[in-house]
Amino acid sequence: MTDTLRLSLLQQFVAVRAATEELISNLSAEDMVVQSMPDASPTKWHLAHTTWFFEQFILKDYLSNYTEFEPDYNYLFNSYYENIGKRHARPMRGMLTRPGIDEILAYREAINETIIQLLDSHHSKHKRIEELVTLGLHHEMQHQELLMTDILHAFSLNPLLPALNPDRYDEPETSVEALSFHSFEPELTSIGAHGDEFYFDCEGPRHSVYVHPFALANRPVSNREWLDFIHDGGYQTPTLWLSDGWHQVQKEQWRAPLYWQKNEGHWQQFTLSGLLDIDADAPVCHISYFEADAFARWAGYRLVTEQEWEVAARQHSPNGNYLEAQRWRPSCSAGQGLVQLYGDVWEWTASPYSPYPGFKIAEGAVGEYNGKFMCGQYVLRGGSCVTPAMQIRPSYRNFFYPHQRWQFTGMRLAKDL
Amino acid sequence: MTDTLRLSLLQQFVAVRAATEELISNLSAEDMVVQSMPDASPTKWHLAHTTWFFEQFILKDYLSNYTEFEPDYNYLFNSYYENIGKRHARPMRGMLTRPGIDEILAYREAINETIIQLLDSHHSKHKRIEELVTLGLHHEMQHQELLMTDILHAFSLNPLLPALNPDRYDEPETSVEALSFHSFEPELTSIGAHGDEFYFDCEGPRHSVYVHPFALANRPVSNREWLDFIHDGGYQTPTLWLSDGWHQVQKEQWRAPLYWQKNEGHWQQFTLSGLLDIDADAPVCHISYFEADAFARWAGYRLVTEQEWEVAARQHSPNGNYLEAQRWRPSCSAGQGLVQLYGDVWEWTASPYSPYPGFKIAEGAVGEYNGKFMCGQYVLRGGSCVTPAMQIRPSYRNFFYPHQRWQFTGMRLAKDL
Amino acid sequence: MTDTLRLSLLQQFVAVRAATEELISNLSAEDMVVQSMPDASPTKWHLAHTTWFFEQFILKDYLSNYTEFEPDYNYLFNSYYENIGKRHARPMRGMLTRPGIDEILAYREAINETIIQLLDSHHSKHKRIEELVTLGLHHEMQHQELLMTDILHAFSLNPLLPALNPDRYDEPETSVEALSFHSFEPELTSIGAHGDEFYFDCEGPRHSVYVHPFALANRPVSNREWLDFIHDGGYQTPTLWLSDGWHQVQKEQWRAPLYWQKNEGHWQQFTLSGLLDIDADAPVCHISYFEADAFARWAGYRLVTEQEWEVAARQHSPNGNYLEAQRWRPSCSAGQGLVQLYGDVWEWTASPYSPYPGFKIAEGAVGEYNGKFMCGQYVLRGGSCVTPAMQIRPSYRNFFYPHQRWQFTGMRLAKDL
Amino acid sequence: MTDTLRLSLLQQFVAVRAATEELISNLSAEDMVVQSMPDASPTKWHLAHTTWFFEQFILKDYLSNYTEFEPDYNYLFNSYYENIGKRHARPMRGMLTRPGIDEILAYREAINETIIQLLDSHHSKHKRIEELVTLGLHHEMQHQELLMTDILHAFSLNPLLPALNPDRYDEPETSVEALSFHSFEPELTSIGAHGDEFYFDCEGPRHSVYVHPFALANRPVSNREWLDFIHDGGYQTPTLWLSDGWHQVQKEQWRAPLYWQKNEGHWQQFTLSGLLDIDADAPVCHISYFEADAFARWAGYRLVTEQEWEVAARQHSPNGNYLEAQRWRPSCSAGQGLVQLYGDVWEWTASPYSPYPGFKIAEGAVGEYNGKFMCGQYVLRGGSCVTPAMQIRPSYRNFFYPHQRWQFTGMRLAKDL
Repeated sequence: MTDTLRLSLLQQFVAVRAATEELISNLSAEDMVVQSMPDASPTKWHLAHTTWFFEQFILKDYLSNYTEFEPDYNYLFNSYYENIGKRHARPMRGMLTRPGIDEILAYREAINETIIQLLDSHHSKHKRIEELVTLGLHHEMQHQELLMTDILHAFSLNPLLPALNPDRYDEPETSVEALSFHSFEPELTSIGAHGDEFYFDCEGPRHSVYVHPFALANRPVSNREWLDFIHDGGYQTPTLWLSDGWHQVQKEQWRAPLYWQKNEGHWQQFTLSGLLDIDADAPVCHISYFEADAFARWAGYRLVTEQEWEVAARQHSPNGNYLEAQRWRPSCSAGQGLVQLYGDVWEWTASPYSPYPGFKIAEGAVGEYNGKFMCGQYVLRGGSCVTPAMQIRPSYRNFFYPHQRWQFTGMRLAKDL
Repeated sequence: MTDTLRLSLLQQFVAVRAATEELISNLSAEDMVVQSMPDASPTKWHLAHTTWFFEQFILKDYLSNYTEFEPDYNYLFNSYYENIGKRHARPMRGMLTRPGIDEILAYREAINETIIQLLDSHHSKHKRIEELVTLGLHHEMQHQELLMTDILHAFSLNPLLPALNPDRYDEPETSVEALSFHSFEPELTSIGAHGDEFYFDCEGPRHSVYVHPFALANRPVSNREWLDFIHDGGYQTPTLWLSDGWHQVQKEQWRAPLYWQKNEGHWQQFTLSGLLDIDADAPVCHISYFEADAFARWAGYRLVTEQEWEVAARQHSPNGNYLEAQRWRPSCSAGQGLVQLYGDVWEWTASPYSPYPGFKIAEGAVGEYNGKFMCGQYVLRGGSCVTPAMQIRPSYRNFFYPHQRWQFTGMRLAKDL
Repeated sequence: MTDTLRLSLLQQFVAVRAATEELISNLSAEDMVVQSMPDASPTKWHLAHTTWFFEQFILKDYLSNYTEFEPDYNYLFNSYYENIGKRHARPMRGMLTRPGIDEILAYREAINETIIQLLDSHHSKHKRIEELVTLGLHHEMQHQELLMTDILHAFSLNPLLPALNPDRYDEPETSVEALSFHSFEPELTSIGAHGDEFYFDCEGPRHSVYVHPFALANRPVSNREWLDFIHDGGYQTPTLWLSDGWHQVQKEQWRAPLYWQKNEGHWQQFTLSGLLDIDADAPVCHISYFEADAFARWAGYRLVTEQEWEVAARQHSPNGNYLEAQRWRPSCSAGQGLVQLYGDVWEWTASPYSPYPGFKIAEGAVGEYNGKFMCGQYVLRGGSCVTPAMQIRPSYRNFFYPHQRWQFTGMRLAKDL
Repeated sequence: MTDTLRLSLLQQFVAVRAATEELISNLSAEDMVVQSMPDASPTKWHLAHTTWFFEQFILKDYLSNYTEFEPDYNYLFNSYYENIGKRHARPMRGMLTRPGIDEILAYREAINETIIQLLDSHHSKHKRIEELVTLGLHHEMQHQELLMTDILHAFSLNPLLPALNPDRYDEPETSVEALSFHSFEPELTSIGAHGDEFYFDCEGPRHSVYVHPFALANRPVSNREWLDFIHDGGYQTPTLWLSDGWHQVQKEQWRAPLYWQKNEGHWQQFTLSGLLDIDADAPVCHISYFEADAFARWAGYRLVTEQEWEVAARQHSPNGNYLEAQRWRPSCSAGQGLVQLYGDVWEWTASPYSPYPGFKIAEGAVGEYNGKFMCGQYVLRGGSCVTPAMQIRPSYRNFFYPHQRWQFTGMRLAKDL
């Protein structure tokens, strides 16, 4: 590996770490300590856990005589690595009023310095360090997205409905294209990541798969279409739903996507820019798999499989409405062809999150990264308006449980040919 | 369709309906009313619901001026058909002390007579009736198996540990073959049911799939091997488990398969023949998907996919230890080659229960049969010691949630090549 | 104690035991096995537990070389006696399909015979035996009432709404008196049971208490008055309720007493005679303490204390609508003066169930009878239409949790003077 | 009312309000936002709610043209006043990251100024205003105590075990007196508050009550005695416990008082001064009613009734270890006679929290203060080491549910004579 590339990693490190801290500029110490539900984590915890990741998997293993910044942090900020030992219970993360945000920022700074020194000093020696730093950066970018989704959820529970992003509101100007379908021929093809660029273990190995003929919608389902579903009694019609989905609809009294509320007869949604009127042309967002599946059945179509999605998406360049655009809510896109495959909203696929043929879990704690979650969840593809640009690629497999809605999740229709 | 075949359907009808009633010969009225958990149903409910199925889907639609046997039964004995209307809540089935078992048996007899008359009178006319009777019989056979699993569960909660099958205990005489693996070449092949023989909608459509090279164990995992897993701390080692599985192990304090108990230092299991010593050579039974997956990881292998299983199994004739053998617990089989693919224990596969490419849900209530359960469950293959022989075929897809254990569920190891 | 009295105890024993069995004459084996909620028990369990009480507390202690009828029964039919050992979990009583009802009736007969022999043989010797037999009979009478309340609850969950008492329906003929109040002077008086007649430990010791001047309503609150409360928004007005009561109203969505349902615009109630129109003049029944308290506040009065009730009631003779009348639902009574203090409905008092001054828990298992329940419950007085006549006396303290409604519970208004 | 007294009220107002803010001097903004359980509230919420109380019940009613400081605060900071309208759900108080602590302190300052002006301007006119200000101050003092108990609970959930009061640790120097009992004669006496000094509505009306002869322990139960109870298997002996208490012990796996932990073989307790060794001579603290009752039964005594306690306590002057001492944990007291009736620990009484004879709930929202909680709770007497001195008086009735332990609750033994 050349010095140029190594420099690039160091630059990446500095940039990604700084980008995380930029996200908290409008947050108070109080905003950063709360945990609004067990699925979410406090901002402060995201800041600390991503730092602990570098300390735990790199500094402790590759720096001789390394002294932990604070031994308790290993207990407090380990997320789920059973190999590493006991840890603070996930639903109790919001109880950590101490260490305070200033201490956490000092922790970040100290680890940053040590990692930078390490990268500087170990040039041309430790490919494994570089791999782990790269993994840590991608891990941190995942937490950048989670930080945003978790703050949105926390703010949504405050009756004052605070806006993280108060000045970024603009009226939608474009209008959406009519729904159309793009056809794909049957083929025996290869799916999954390979090569030198970073990818998570679950994105490989690349493998053969037979894809049946299908057609894919030109764009995500829009809010306008979702309003039709609501008005047509979609949330009251059990035969549209998976059995578990219908159970969930009744238990949670779902009547619309998460963050939607009906005020004086018209629908609004709570966003990182506060409470806004529904943008009818924008992609629907904050829907569960259950809702996506029911909508597709109502519309007479189906969800796309992750293999079909990847076949379609790898022909398109990944640009879109990402975290860096600082809009932080989906936009309407008026383009021709297959649009918005990347960015705006994650697209639920019909594919359960399972290992690819030949997938092996890595040795040691890093092996706990993805494999142990391969049960009961569904794959989402494409990235959202709060996904960092560097996370966007055709092979990326995001995954959530079918009832979860607090991520920026939407959908795209497909059909058999 | 010839008269011979029609006669055969009538004979089948008489035989299947009688077989159900034979299963209850050792049960008291009290045994048949209880519901031991929401997943299970009372025996009496199984007897009535299978009868209602014929009345609802055949007699009401195809007999002009048909008068319901008892209008309330439509509410009481509809399982989950949203198209048909409201129904008694599933967890409340055990509250139905009335109608009594005698009334239910009278209901069965009345519907039997009418169906028999219908089959006799409509010869050469209504293929759809014959299809629905066939569906009803396969539906009833599924409930024969459920009836047995549910009684086992109910009896297991009685401190007296009653035996349904008290005289059928015999010591195992055979010993099991050593574990070995049979290799399969990669191929683009076809999977799924087709043709004239009955199959459930979810078993089709037959479709192309690329199967990677793999090897499959010669036999199911045995109780002896499971004891090794226990003694090696399998239930105490979080890194062996899926994240959801480990959560379940802790919540339920699992330490062994369902129905196992340790008495004075040695393991026993409760069976339909009462409490017996563990038969070390017999296939392990009453394990969850989570346990099957953890065991495979511990052993250094993996679970088989349903496609791989079908490729392997379609080369073998389906004979084995089924319901009709009246043993009602798994046997050890000493045979050479791939043995016990059929019968003894259902084999958990690594495949989430999802629709095959091109799968369409049928119109109307019958369409609720399988499709709406395609979420969160895993496919099991092969049949068990309480599966009726007519249900055994290579394409049959049974499915349960990964935490469920009260079915006769076991596992077989596989590996990549 | 004279032979005459001893004879009387034997006669009592025979009569009470037979009376229990008379109650089940319209029940099927299936009716008698179910447990409709953790608070209720199966009929069969009541039959067995009351029998076990005689076996456990008398035969095992006072018959030398007594052999248990069936050792498992000690585990199955112990209700809550920690001194005696482990026992079947209360919410699992409905799983006991075996022993069957015939075995339980044989158990009853065997214990009956032995007790009768014992009583015959031990004359003039063991006062303690006679005390315990008397306790066992009063215990059995308590279970006679529970058996009736539990069957009503179980039947209420059956959509067929079966009637235990189908032929006993008659239209109410009397009309109720207008509400009026009877005044009582302040006094330092004595409260509680004493003397030779049987009473439960919690009814004593008799002790001094200062009773402030008060007035008591001439009769229980009627269904007509309760309908006024409903129509006036009683169930929707939080300020009428205790804080815990309002929480309960919302959680359970209470809108009327238990077993009331509104059909085509008019209210009906499910009773042991099936579904009947509300009898407007009859006492309201199946209300919780929370509802009784809220009603009193709405009406501008309060509930009576148990001391006040006892002061008022001891001047009246205990006759009324009891179990033996076989009506099994409250009647309207048209009498003058303070009426229906006894029978028809238990009257919630404002008094938490606490020990009287000087109360001591008896040694041994029998001491677990009442004292350990003196927390969180409220006292009810007077007896109901399913209380055996021998249980009716001014000092009797029944007790239930403030949210419970499945007993025959009503209320009477009081006020300060 | 003279000017001197009015001055005094104003001085009281300033002093009490300032005292609240002094309590938060060691807390960070993060410490003040969390809610550690539904029973507890965030510090910030206590600060705001007590302020809202003055605004709601005084400024809005008695200042013409008063403009609310912030209309949303009425929704956010109403605790449980149904008369006033809808309010933020109690378990969601910890989600209020905004308004921030600075805004809440500004709110306090603004309301303080207006109340001071009001008190200054309305001299000799509005007795009702003075009553309500006095009520508001006593209300605020109750929240001073709650603030301390809630912070202790929140800190106890932080693995870092932070100390609010780090410098105030001192070794106990005194040793406790042996247990002895003081006798009281039977009497018809009067109980309850009356006169001009402030008291809460539930402390009256003063009324006659007959008190039976009893004896009361010279001091509270000590930690040393509690250790004896633990070592004697108190937490493992079901017959010592109320039925509901034993259920709680098993459900929560109680083995010691709240905040106790066994480290390397010896017991420590978490306090507002951090984790300390058990002070064997100090009163036991953080026990539930269930534990107090079980201990008394184990010791062969009983709990005192609130009437007995008041008879004994009104002969003693109320000085002790209160909030102002800033020790914030119970001390051992070596005095002679009946000691520590006031301060150190609240003493559980055997008396359910019920209305005194003649108690009437006040009209309007202020009437919701106490009466609606008179169900299911027990009375505690005497005050604790975090009770403000002005709250200490013989008639004060504190009340909590029998399972609650996070208050500074202890016990004193009594017996019948």
